[in-house]
Amino acid sequence: MKRGTSRDIRTANRYEVLRQIIAASPTSRQELAAATGLSLATVATLVGELLDLHMITEVGFEDSAGGRPRGLVAVNASGGALIGVDIAETYVHVELFDLALNVLARAAENMRPGESRPEQVVGHVAAAAGSVVAQAGVEAARVLGVGVSVPGQVDRATGVSAYAPNWDWHDVPLLDLLSEHIAYPLYLDNPLRAGAVAELWFGAARGHANAVVVNLGTGVGAGLVLGGGLHRGVSNSAGEWGHTTLVLDGRPCRCGNHGCVETYVGAPGIMQNLRELSPHSPLLHPDDQTATIDALAAGIAAQDPDAVGAVRETARYLGAGIANLVNLVNPEVVVLSSWVAARLGEPLLEEVREAVARHALQRPLAASRIVLSPIPTDPACLGAATFALEGALQSVGQRGVRRTAPARVRSRIAPAP
Amino acid sequence: MKRGTSRDIRTANRYEVLRQIIAASPTSRQELAAATGLSLATVATLVGELLDLHMITEVGFEDSAGGRPRGLVAVNASGGALIGVDIAETYVHVELFDLALNVLARAAENMRPGESRPEQVVGHVAAAAGSVVAQAGVEAARVLGVGVSVPGQVDRATGVSAYAPNWDWHDVPLLDLLSEHIAYPLYLDNPLRAGAVAELWFGAARGHANAVVVNLGTGVGAGLVLGGGLHRGVSNSAGEWGHTTLVLDGRPCRCGNHGCVETYVGAPGIMQNLRELSPHSPLLHPDDQTATIDALAAGIAAQDPDAVGAVRETARYLGAGIANLVNLVNPEVVVLSSWVAARLGEPLLEEVREAVARHALQRPLAASRIVLSPIPTDPACLGAATFALEGALQSVGQRGVRRTAPARVRSRIAPAP
Repeated sequence: MKRGTSRDIRTANRYEVLRQIIAASPTSRQELAAATGLSLATVATLVGELLDLHMITEVGFEDSAGGRPRGLVAVNASGGALIGVDIAETYVHVELFDLALNVLARAAENMRPGESRPEQVVGHVAAAAGSVVAQAGVEAARVLGVGVSVPGQVDRATGVSAYAPNWDWHDVPLLDLLSEHIAYPLYLDNPLRAGAVAELWFGAARGHANAVVVNLGTGVGAGLVLGGGLHRGVSNSAGEWGHTTLVLDGRPCRCGNHGCVETYVGAPGIMQNLRELSPHSPLLHPDDQTATIDALAAGIAAQDPDAVGAVRETARYLGAGIANLVNLVNPEVVVLSSWVAARLGEPLLEEVREAVARHALQRPLAASRIVLSPIPTDPACLGAATFALEGALQSVGQRGVRRTAPARVRSRIAPAP
Repeated sequence: MKRGTSRDIRTANRYEVLRQIIAASPTSRQELAAATGLSLATVATLVGELLDLHMITEVGFEDSAGGRPRGLVAVNASGGALIGVDIAETYVHVELFDLALNVLARAAENMRPGESRPEQVVGHVAAAAGSVVAQAGVEAARVLGVGVSVPGQVDRATGVSAYAPNWDWHDVPLLDLLSEHIAYPLYLDNPLRAGAVAELWFGAARGHANAVVVNLGTGVGAGLVLGGGLHRGVSNSAGEWGHTTLVLDGRPCRCGNHGCVETYVGAPGIMQNLRELSPHSPLLHPDDQTATIDALAAGIAAQDPDAVGAVRETARYLGAGIANLVNLVNPEVVVLSSWVAARLGEPLLEEVREAVARHALQRPLAASRIVLSPIPTDPACLGAATFALEGALQSVGQRGVRRTAPARVRSRIAPAP
């Protein structure tokens, strides 16, 4: 049996303590022990490590009833900076965060249809990353790392985009390409896992052992939080709910299968739902997903029958697909995330809740809530930045120095030391 | 965040050490530490506890190159007995095991169609349990517990069958009813989880952090082994893959949904596949699932076109459904288990592998193997007995005495002490 090693457990505990401190600063070691279930001695050790890293600071004392005053710690927001990159089919978003994961600067680049060669994408990322560092005026040495989210299957260890179906990328060495432009430690993963980690640290999955984060964009998928942590699967491919069959022999999917969930509830699938309902609907912008989803959102607000019908039809598929997740995973919470969910919002959520109730078994249905992501910014950027934070925490104690671990360090953006 | 408590971790480690000892007796503390990743000190403590419980014994020493001789331990097969009960739609199987989980006695009762009132089922279980204890001549005090597997949704804590769709049971207090007849500690769960635990301890999931055990019987489902342990979900309902939608608006299912996986690959679904292919096939025994599946198995061996066609059609659905599990969970191994899988065997397996390859994404597909359960006996009995073993291990240290924890002790079967 491959078990978690004691180092894995220490790393997970370190995440957990920092997560709590970020969520509720200032706080005491005693409160942290109560909140995490860890012993006071373990908490004290981990707090000591985080203090040494300047990720948190001592901020005073609080009285404890009759006992001696308790030391308080808080996240040291300015103790470092993190960059999160969300590469999507239609845009690149880059955000720079402080250690409390507040956004200090953001930059966006639009990707035109067809603009999908790796060098083009890398160029957009490099430009936007340079922009946020410059905007925020952050000292280069304070940037702890850059997390990059790219759609599809990724190999984290090698930094390779193994397969991105929208662009038909195969084995693109994305981090190597990015390291030509970006001198900070780089971490690669995909939006399903970035979104799930964002919800786990800062959003609707906080405090839940089992949660599913449904990512609704051009592609769709489900980040799985199981047993209090991210479930990656054996080859970091878990969560490809978008490519599970919902309608056997249904619509053809880019992955080669038919009837995948994504073909009905991804942005192009929603456009198809609208087209089947009303082929000449003025809401339909044939070559523009974003414009069509925006038109649907506006249309629902105005009670436009095409919009109401298309969203209802989408929710019918989405509800059946989410019921599958509820029945299989039995989560406490299902979070609807990413740009399509954000734009269609409450009206979509209500239809989805009704549709899930029609399909799911009563017992797991009763145990789960379905909510919209409460994260106000781009969850994939936030999650990607969190991967960079986790990377920085993971390297603690590995060589006694931080910032040495992943290091693909040839420079453009980082100024000379 | 609800974390595992240190007691949970100690219990999991205790399972792990005993699992290793059962798998490879005799063994040394040093080998156990290497196999489990636990420290030698932790292993020594856990081995001491298991020795105190007479679950294992010291069996001598082996030379260690140059060091002092290492003590060897082995499972103490006769240190206790466990009973596993598999209640299915068409039968009740009861097996009595020693502590090495060897079968010492078995009994089976057939359930006639319509014979589904809780008192009837309980009567069958009590008769068969009495039979195995008598056959094996085991002293009542040595029976550590009885694990009971019943289809559908169960509430383990209260011992209630919350919902059994085949019999339309709702909130049947099964363990209370059984405790009128059986004096040993009773543990309730369902065949998905029993089958998964059996594979995890003794079968194809041993040594894998992520595995899916696909249970093919009258009902179907998927026991999930994730992160090295059984995934139960928030209300012990996880794994209801049989009630995930594969064909939206497809065949009506007993659960109220349409197009559930179970309606195509459960035994009645397979009969329907055969009926649609060849309405008057002599292989079809309209009121007898077991006879039909047996006829299909014999028919495949004889290259009967009805049988070949029906199995291929079943594999088409099953392959799409298993590809969904591969894409979503990204397991190392998918195990086909239970009586339908056992009877249709290799021919079904081969068709399923081909069908999965047509539907799954390449990366998770390449990472996973699909195999038949290697467990030679009834996996649900074995898994249920394992729950009883886990229950006995879990109660260690809770009050300093074992056999006190679940205890629904009114007696028929157990002789007076």
